[in-house]
Amino acid sequence: MADEVRNKQVILKNYVSGFPKESDMEIVTSSIRLKIPEGNKDAVLVKNLYLSCDPYMRGRMTKRDTPTFVPSFELGKPMNGYGVVKVLDSTHPNYKKGDLAWGFTGWEEYSLITSPQLLIKIEHTDLPLSYYTGILGMPGVTAYAGFYEVCSPKKGEFVYVSAASGAVGQIVGQFAKLMGCYVVGSAGSKEKVDLLKNKFGFDDAFNYKEEPDLDAALKRYFPEGIDIYFENVGGKMLDAVLLNMRIRGRIAVCGMISQYNLENPEGVHNLASIIAKRIRMEGFLAGDFYHLYPKFLEMVIPYIKQGKIVYVEDVAEGLESGPTSLIGLFTGRNVGKQLVVVARE
Amino acid sequence: MADEVRNKQVILKNYVSGFPKESDMEIVTSSIRLKIPEGNKDAVLVKNLYLSCDPYMRGRMTKRDTPTFVPSFELGKPMNGYGVVKVLDSTHPNYKKGDLAWGFTGWEEYSLITSPQLLIKIEHTDLPLSYYTGILGMPGVTAYAGFYEVCSPKKGEFVYVSAASGAVGQIVGQFAKLMGCYVVGSAGSKEKVDLLKNKFGFDDAFNYKEEPDLDAALKRYFPEGIDIYFENVGGKMLDAVLLNMRIRGRIAVCGMISQYNLENPEGVHNLASIIAKRIRMEGFLAGDFYHLYPKFLEMVIPYIKQGKIVYVEDVAEGLESGPTSLIGLFTGRNVGKQLVVVARE
Repeated sequence: MADEVRNKQVILKNYVSGFPKESDMEIVTSSIRLKIPEGNKDAVLVKNLYLSCDPYMRGRMTKRDTPTFVPSFELGKPMNGYGVVKVLDSTHPNYKKGDLAWGFTGWEEYSLITSPQLLIKIEHTDLPLSYYTGILGMPGVTAYAGFYEVCSPKKGEFVYVSAASGAVGQIVGQFAKLMGCYVVGSAGSKEKVDLLKNKFGFDDAFNYKEEPDLDAALKRYFPEGIDIYFENVGGKMLDAVLLNMRIRGRIAVCGMISQYNLENPEGVHNLASIIAKRIRMEGFLAGDFYHLYPKFLEMVIPYIKQGKIVYVEDVAEGLESGPTSLIGLFTGRNVGKQLVVVARE
Repeated sequence: MADEVRNKQVILKNYVSGFPKESDMEIVTSSIRLKIPEGNKDAVLVKNLYLSCDPYMRGRMTKRDTPTFVPSFELGKPMNGYGVVKVLDSTHPNYKKGDLAWGFTGWEEYSLITSPQLLIKIEHTDLPLSYYTGILGMPGVTAYAGFYEVCSPKKGEFVYVSAASGAVGQIVGQFAKLMGCYVVGSAGSKEKVDLLKNKFGFDDAFNYKEEPDLDAALKRYFPEGIDIYFENVGGKMLDAVLLNMRIRGRIAVCGMISQYNLENPEGVHNLASIIAKRIRMEGFLAGDFYHLYPKFLEMVIPYIKQGKIVYVEDVAEGLESGPTSLIGLFTGRNVGKQLVVVARE
């Protein structure tokens, strides 16, 4: 039709086992009419501005037999995930043309969203809009819920964060400092370790790739042990942490990125230590905590404006960079929150 | 001295790695005067009636570099553990000759206890005294705290108990039935499975040794998944359970008996499932819950008297049977709570 525009899309070509490759995805060009088709009540048609690359998306690239909290991607259709969108057309009473929102959208230039209950309207536009893929979006809620709700932190406690310069880890570390904890982070490069120490204010940090003995490293950084472990990586790191937890320690399990591309996950051998040390280990999803989002914003926005919390993003330009950016999460190529700019307005 | 009596003792001869053997322990004969020596304030001298064989004792048979919640046994000295004792002499204001108590005592005929704060006086003597090594003692508190406090059970939930005919498991299963849960237990013989189904009232039970695929077995017994797993065994069983937990499931980690004799514990591979399912896994020790002991007795004693809770013991006669009985826990030789009768009164 004459009034259609080009709609570039990122689709998943095939389901993945092991490490994902760029060639598992493909950029295709479709077209779309920038008006909601007749008969779609409570829908919005949006222009996608920023797309979020998140580790949990790896699970969706594999066909799952059993249902999980988010379904596998559909082959041949645009992938989807968190993003920041601008409303171009709306039949939903809460949205009008020009509104900004963040939430679930397609990996494409324009999306027709028929379930706008998965969107949250953006009220504060005096901060970088891209932050709604990170500190003001799902990763922010993840850090907030995981640290304050799951870890039950207390002033003076010893906190360890793995993948600490990532989208969530950098926020957790700064929350922990604001709470008066002693915080050490680990990451996979000198550049990231420098960020942790010099930009995010971690008390200390180390490059796990340079530590042949993770148990020894943790004993060096936590001679008195760890009260709180914010778990982003799993596998060998978790095994080493279990040997270094203190009595009544808490492990908030946010992710296990080291395991997502393994056909057979690594074994964790030191679980028995959770008995004598009365350790609580708890998995959580940001999705269970969105009722806290207004309270979270009320806390975090002033901190950002006052410079008490900073946020580092790794910004890729153009929808075409989506596949590379997503895969880069699993090699640790990204420095800070990985996002993709589809359009700036 | 003329007024001394024989005092047979079980001592640990050497520290153990791997599977313990009878020859790691030895029966020796010492002598003791049945009167508290001068200068011992706040002590009791007791006759040991019943000794408790508990899986945690395996850890104490190994020399540990790092301190844990109970220290290693001292070589050449009588082993110690939970037991039921009769006071023969006392310099402690709370105890007088003839009092009965349970708590920490020696693996010997008579013990001088200089820390009677590790004893709890027995007030209810109208139940079998041996029960104070089991349902009315540490295993009872373990089951109570683990189930009600750690698992936060709700009526109608699906509960799985491993090592279910053991000292703790049989109580947990009966608590779960009283709470209105659906309960399945596993054990290692037909005799034990029969006990679970016919004596303890589990809804179903299976012999894990006859299940080549534990995941498939759990899917058969829990087609809708498991809300609560009372963990006594660890290793492969935990791995299978993790695949079958329901959303917001809870795993109370009481013990991991399958791992205690391994030089290198087995790896647990399915931990990542605790994220998407928001599973809480928590280790606990009865020792943190003794403040609930009066409340626990108030609940459990009427149930026992009314026959609503039954308790099966495996009673070995004579202190000499201590080493065999203790080792039998790790081959599953015992049927029900393993205890040793040193003397009946």
